[in-house]
Parts: sequence; structure tokens; C-alpha cells
Amino acid sequence: MVMGMVVGTVVSTRKEDELQGLKFLLVKACDADGKPTGSTVVAVDAVGAGVGEVVLYASGSSARQTKVTKDRPVDATIMAIVDQVEVDGARRYNKE
Amino acid sequence: MVMGMVVGTVVSTRKEDELQGLKFLLVKACDADGKPTGSTVVAVDAVGAGVGEVVLYASGSSARQTKVTKDRPVDATIMAIVDQVEVDGARRYNKE
Amino acid sequence: MVMGMVVGTVVSTRKEDELQGLKFLLVKACDADGKPTGSTVVAVDAVGAGVGEVVLYASGSSARQTKVTKDRPVDATIMAIVDQVEVDGARRYNKE
Amino acid sequence: MVMGMVVGTVVSTRKEDELQGLKFLLVKACDADGKPTGSTVVAVDAVGAGVGEVVLYASGSSARQTKVTKDRPVDATIMAIVDQVEVDGARRYNKE
Amino acid sequence: MVMGMVVGTVVSTRKEDELQGLKFLLVKACDADGKPTGSTVVAVDAVGAGVGEVVLYASGSSARQTKVTKDRPVDATIMAIVDQVEVDGARRYNKE
Repeated sequence: MVMGMVVGTVVSTRKEDELQGLKFLLVKACDADGKPTGSTVVAVDAVGAGVGEVVLYASGSSARQTKVTKDRPVDATIMAIVDQVEVDGARRYNKE
Repeated sequence: MVMGMVVGTVVSTRKEDELQGLKFLLVKACDADGKPTGSTVVAVDAVGAGVGEVVLYASGSSARQTKVTKDRPVDATIMAIVDQVEVDGARRYNKE
Repeated sequence: MVMGMVVGTVVSTRKEDELQGLKFLLVKACDADGKPTGSTVVAVDAVGAGVGEVVLYASGSSARQTKVTKDRPVDATIMAIVDQVEVDGARRYNKE
Repeated sequence: MVMGMVVGTVVSTRKEDELQGLKFLLVKACDADGKPTGSTVVAVDAVGAGVGEVVLYASGSSARQTKVTKDRPVDATIMAIVDQVEVDGARRYNKE
Repeated sequence: MVMGMVVGTVVSTRKEDELQGLKFLLVKACDADGKPTGSTVVAVDAVGAGVGEVVLYASGSSARQTKVTKDRPVDATIMAIVDQVEVDGARRYNKE
């Protein structure tokens, strides 16, 4: 998975039927401190994530292995909200 | 998924049988403002997208999870036409 | 899919059994004008493509969805020969 | 697979059900000497790896082919702990 | 597939059970002349490749489509040893 920060939302009316009801979030890859650094993807939310939260998202066929995304044409899904990141024994990110 | 702008069309007469009847669009990855910035892919259209529209496309096996692309040798499919993008509470892209 | 130009051929005698009889082409990703710009892959030919032609190739599991590559250990397959590319209403590439 | 060094841990309370009980490690791609050089992923641990160890991780659907990750929404799994790396006949990395 | 040169070997004692008995080779992506240029992966050997040889390796689920790697958690497999590469009609690489 990749660690990223939810930075925004994407709204679409006209879309593939199987995507109805899913929430699309704009996620920017981030470093261990939770600072957005990398590329941006649009991921489906499977855990109730919100803007400003650091999350883990999975890509590819693994993105379809959740209750919310099963058999849907989704290739990026937010799987977890990150509470803490520790690098070399030091706390680098702490939610709240 | 990745957000991109449809910038053109690709025509092919000689192709794998299973691709007959599909529309190939040239899609350039774009930022939250809808400005093309990134790399270009050729995606199959599943939602009636047109040149100039900002869309979401899925890659890999997920690209084959639509009615239009089921069991076809397709690895990138346009899944949605983007209406709005909001980043940190501010509207960044608005269709029309 | 990715648009690329066939720039060469690769010959291999010692290979996985399931690859016997397949033609390996060296394909360089290209821009809308058909000018090689990007990275190079070795793709299996499913449509009779030749050196100098601009093609579309699919990657990943989608590369195994053709008659020629079914159930074979192939991760990149040429699916179509490009005739024309149009960007913003203007012809950018024309075969022949 | 990609060779990487385990540099940290990620803790998440709120996550997809199927991820319960898995250990998330922050892994930074490294060169043949075991020096972190590349991008960072969050991989699930299938072999009891710890911070500071050089490991091999698999991505994509292959990440779900272990007892620990079977049918779980995981796209990166640590598969092996590296003991030795040899390049052109010379030892480049040696665990311990 | 990607063309690469086998530059080394990786030894691992503690690993996922399904990886027992597989040979891990360090492969560096190379250009048409067989000169290493790109990124490095650790691929499983399915054809008896050795250090110094130019090979083709497949990634993703295709890497599991060989007798040696069937149902194993492998995401990169060496599928062929390259004998010759020709670009624009000129021999660029010739084994031995």
C-alpha cells in the first residue's frame, strides 16, 4: 500500500453504473511525516476517511477485495486511516 | 483511478478482434485544476466521454470490470466524467 | 493502453515453453505525433505489426486476453496498429 | 520483487476488516548494498521482518498469494528476509 | 516484458514457504545494446539464466504463469534468455 493524505473530493454524475454510491477522494502520496510529496490518485473510500487524514490505499486488483468495492471497476481504494508512523524508533506522524 | 483530460482520439483498423467497436481516447493525466500535466495513455471509453472533458480512468484488471470492456484485452478504461473537484474546501475544477 | 513505435525485434532460443512461437517486438512509447519518447518494453505481437509501425499495447493481465497470448506468461501485447491520431481536432499522426 | 529496507512501522485502528491482525511495515527500496535509495511503500509482513532488515517484497495480486494475506485487500507483502547479495561475484550485502 | 541484464544473486533463508527452492536473481533493466541503464528488480529464474546474461522478465500476475512459479507469491520471473536484438535493421546485441 501507499501512504497518502486525503486532499480533496471528486464529484461525478455521469459514470459507470457499478461506481454509483462510491465516494471518490483525491489522495496525494506523502512521506513518513504525513507531508504530501508525491503523485495524486483518485481512490474510493472504504473506511470513512476525510480530507486532511493520512491513509493507506491499495492499488490494482487488491483494490477490489473489500466489501464496498467487490466486483466494481475500481483500481485504488483507501483501506486504513493511519494513527501513527514510527521510523527508526522515533514517532514521525501522530494523528490528532 | 487517475484524473485526466481527454485530448484526442486514436483510430485503428487492424486490431485484436475483441477490440472491435470500442472507442480509443487519448487521455493526459491532469492536476486538480484539470490542467494536463502528466503522462498520456490510450483509454477505452465506457461513459461517452469527449475531447476536452476531465475524466477518471482505471488501469489494469479493473479496466475490464465494465459492461463495455468485460473479457476484452483492455488495460485502461474511462469510468467517469468529472463534474467538480474540491481541494481543502475550495473549488478547483468545475465542468462547464 | 500505451501508444508506441515498434523499433526492433528480440530473438530468444532458450525460453519458457509457453512462449514458443510468439514474436517479440521492441516497442518504444511515443507521443501523439508517433515520435518515440519514452521507455522501451518487449511486447508480444498479436496483430502482425512490423518495425516502424505505431501500435497500441496493453500491459499486465490484460495482455493475456487475446487468442495468441491466452494463458501464456506474457505481460505486454500489441493489440492494434494505429492509423490516425487526432489531438484537439488536428491530425497529428497518419499512417503512410 | 523489490529489495528494500524496513525503516519503520505504521499503526492504524480504523481499517478494512480484512486487514485486522496484519503488521504494516514501512519499506524503502534499496540498492544491492542495502542502502535505502528509492520510494517507500507500506507492506504487510508475512515472515516476521523487523526494522533495519533488508527484505524482498512482492506487489500486486502476487502479494495476496501467502497464507497470511490470502483473499485480503493487500497489494504489497514482505516475502523474504535477505541474507546475502552478490553482484558480479562480489559480496555486496551480508546480514549481520 | 522488460529486457534486463542479470547482475547478481540474492540469498534468503527465512522466507514464505511457497518460495522454497526458487532462485532469486538481481536484474537491471538494460537498453537494446544490453547495457544496464534502468531500475533493478529481484526476479525468479524460470529458464536457467546466469549472471551476465541478457534476459526478458515478466511482471505482475503474468510472472505466475510458468511451471516453476505457478500459484507462488512471485511478481517477477525471467522468461527467456536473449540471443539477439535488432533495431532498425541493425544488430545491436548478440549473445557471445
